[in-house]
Amino acid sequence: MGDIRDKVAVVGIGCTKFGELFERSAEDLIVEAGHEAMRDAGIGPDRIEAAWVGTLSSAMSGNALSDPLKLTGIPITRVENYCASGMEAVRNGAFAVASGMYDVVLALGFEKMKDMMMGGLPAPHPVIDNGEAPHVFAMAANRYFADHGADKSTLAKIAMKNHANGAKNPKAHLRMEVSEDKVLGAPMVYAPLGLFDCCPTTDGAAAVVLCKAEMAGEFSQDPVYIKGLGLSVSYGRPQFDPGFAYDGFPSTQKASGQAYEQAGITAADIDLAEVHDCFTITEILNYEDLGFCERGQGGRAAEEFRFALDGDKPVNPSGGLKSFGHPIGATGVRMVYEVTQQLRGQAGERQVKDARLGLAHNLGGQAAVAAVTVLGNERS
Amino acid sequence: MGDIRDKVAVVGIGCTKFGELFERSAEDLIVEAGHEAMRDAGIGPDRIEAAWVGTLSSAMSGNALSDPLKLTGIPITRVENYCASGMEAVRNGAFAVASGMYDVVLALGFEKMKDMMMGGLPAPHPVIDNGEAPHVFAMAANRYFADHGADKSTLAKIAMKNHANGAKNPKAHLRMEVSEDKVLGAPMVYAPLGLFDCCPTTDGAAAVVLCKAEMAGEFSQDPVYIKGLGLSVSYGRPQFDPGFAYDGFPSTQKASGQAYEQAGITAADIDLAEVHDCFTITEILNYEDLGFCERGQGGRAAEEFRFALDGDKPVNPSGGLKSFGHPIGATGVRMVYEVTQQLRGQAGERQVKDARLGLAHNLGGQAAVAAVTVLGNERS
Repeated sequence: MGDIRDKVAVVGIGCTKFGELFERSAEDLIVEAGHEAMRDAGIGPDRIEAAWVGTLSSAMSGNALSDPLKLTGIPITRVENYCASGMEAVRNGAFAVASGMYDVVLALGFEKMKDMMMGGLPAPHPVIDNGEAPHVFAMAANRYFADHGADKSTLAKIAMKNHANGAKNPKAHLRMEVSEDKVLGAPMVYAPLGLFDCCPTTDGAAAVVLCKAEMAGEFSQDPVYIKGLGLSVSYGRPQFDPGFAYDGFPSTQKASGQAYEQAGITAADIDLAEVHDCFTITEILNYEDLGFCERGQGGRAAEEFRFALDGDKPVNPSGGLKSFGHPIGATGVRMVYEVTQQLRGQAGERQVKDARLGLAHNLGGQAAVAAVTVLGNERS
Repeated sequence: MGDIRDKVAVVGIGCTKFGELFERSAEDLIVEAGHEAMRDAGIGPDRIEAAWVGTLSSAMSGNALSDPLKLTGIPITRVENYCASGMEAVRNGAFAVASGMYDVVLALGFEKMKDMMMGGLPAPHPVIDNGEAPHVFAMAANRYFADHGADKSTLAKIAMKNHANGAKNPKAHLRMEVSEDKVLGAPMVYAPLGLFDCCPTTDGAAAVVLCKAEMAGEFSQDPVYIKGLGLSVSYGRPQFDPGFAYDGFPSTQKASGQAYEQAGITAADIDLAEVHDCFTITEILNYEDLGFCERGQGGRAAEEFRFALDGDKPVNPSGGLKSFGHPIGATGVRMVYEVTQQLRGQAGERQVKDARLGLAHNLGGQAAVAAVTVLGNERS
């Protein structure tokens, strides 16, 4: 395996306000995020040579972008990989730029989850249904409690941290702080996961403009460079594997291993991370799978708020899926949006000090798929 | 725009028998095509570093390949772009190789159309339904008749040619010759298109192994090189555009223009082509859109069997969608399979003489999306 390090730059970013946007169509969201990213780069649609769109099931094919963005005649590809669909748009767009085929491309992710059927899938609402996501992550939480002595108040710390961050974020869906009492007193979804252990059901879109690294100086913003792009697809749903231990997710371990190797770094070098906190327990396991702490230490790290905004390595400064929201196809791109803001020093109240290397992480298909993108603001 | 010329080689190909395969699962088809391609390259699954899978709606996400092929832990991406979904697997896999990230990847396309719902879409059977594919292409046929004096017997020549080719092809779905009387006497589907003007509803899978061009000598077969990869996405369904002329498809014109420019060739340089004959009229318009003949001359070319197997530039030597069949996600990869066989001189009874440059063409989303891949057996 080779690498992609410093071949591709992020030079424009855009993101809608996330939320329950019954009054806005998918096309409205695509137009807002896409044009914000192009404006941020200081370019118009005429500079976009090709595009990639990530959506789980809100649209089919490249026409999802061609019609609303009036990008007619150029190549536009739809990618889908469960909750990593947005990150796949960035990843495949980056490969195409690094291949020498295109100089400037758009990667956009979106999902309209509140007012349309999610294709043939049940809507990804926290419903109690054996085999759906809450079930899988509840198994992981119970296993974690048994192995490491954590409990529901450990999980609650993740919700408290991420809501505190999201409360500072004007584009977050659930822009409010939550107390431990509120988290612990919420209705149960799938024991031991309560309502505030689950990310909400959210509409939104996010977009990035990518270009060949050598051209990055032509655009209006300071560039951020892609350092590594890991992706790992394991076997399908863990509940079909009677030997699955629920004590971590191999797909995250492999995807982050690939990305660190490509970037020539270790987990210790990461200054901030946006990780896939679809459930509070997931973030705790992410700490361990990504190498941010030792195995079994994630719960303690949560209790000590070690990854809070004022810590050494803030995790989910945006508010995460928990507070910012999780429109499935949008999330991976939204994470690159946040990491880029942080690496540019434009994150306002949420700004992480001296941020030079950031990580974005998706986990999807009930842990079958993980994607990790490492970004940095210096070209080595 | 840059190019991809001679950066990526096709070194392994596989394809199932196409047909109404009620007795075989999608996984059966994936295993057969994937392992045939790996055996053809002389490698095992351990050499595959990443994979792309094209399917319209027979599966979601990279798990479509990870489970049946036991490709666990590596990156596997699903791409979807209507009838160009298979070609997109080849295209995105090729970019990733050309980027320097991977040396050897698998691109696989499949569709199980006979015994499952096609996601949220109506099954793409030739049903009479305003807004479905037969309607759009019937409009094009009627326009062509009015403009250029062709008639149903002109269309029938396409069916006769493609069935004659497919009858020589052991993997074709409808492996039989058809007479003009048979074509003209068939039930009407959507006037003027009769049953033999429409491709059948087919199950199947096809796969290719791609590698960095410099490594091509390491594999067991003579390599074929990717020369150009065009893709064009126009606005959505033409019937929503009251100004759409139905006299050709801009997406094909643009995609082929891109691919010819990247390859540094013109249409005249192509020795054989696999084109998207979803309906007989489509192949006639493809001749014109791809630059194989002048505008308005496609009907006459059909009547004269100018693109038959013994002509200067055989089109659809495999039998095309008409006879070989059209499992949507498989078709683009199946075309690369046929073109590669031809460029290797392994096409048996269907072999085109002195084949050095071949073209594969998809048209999808009722003409909204077109993809063109140019392949050659010499590295310039």
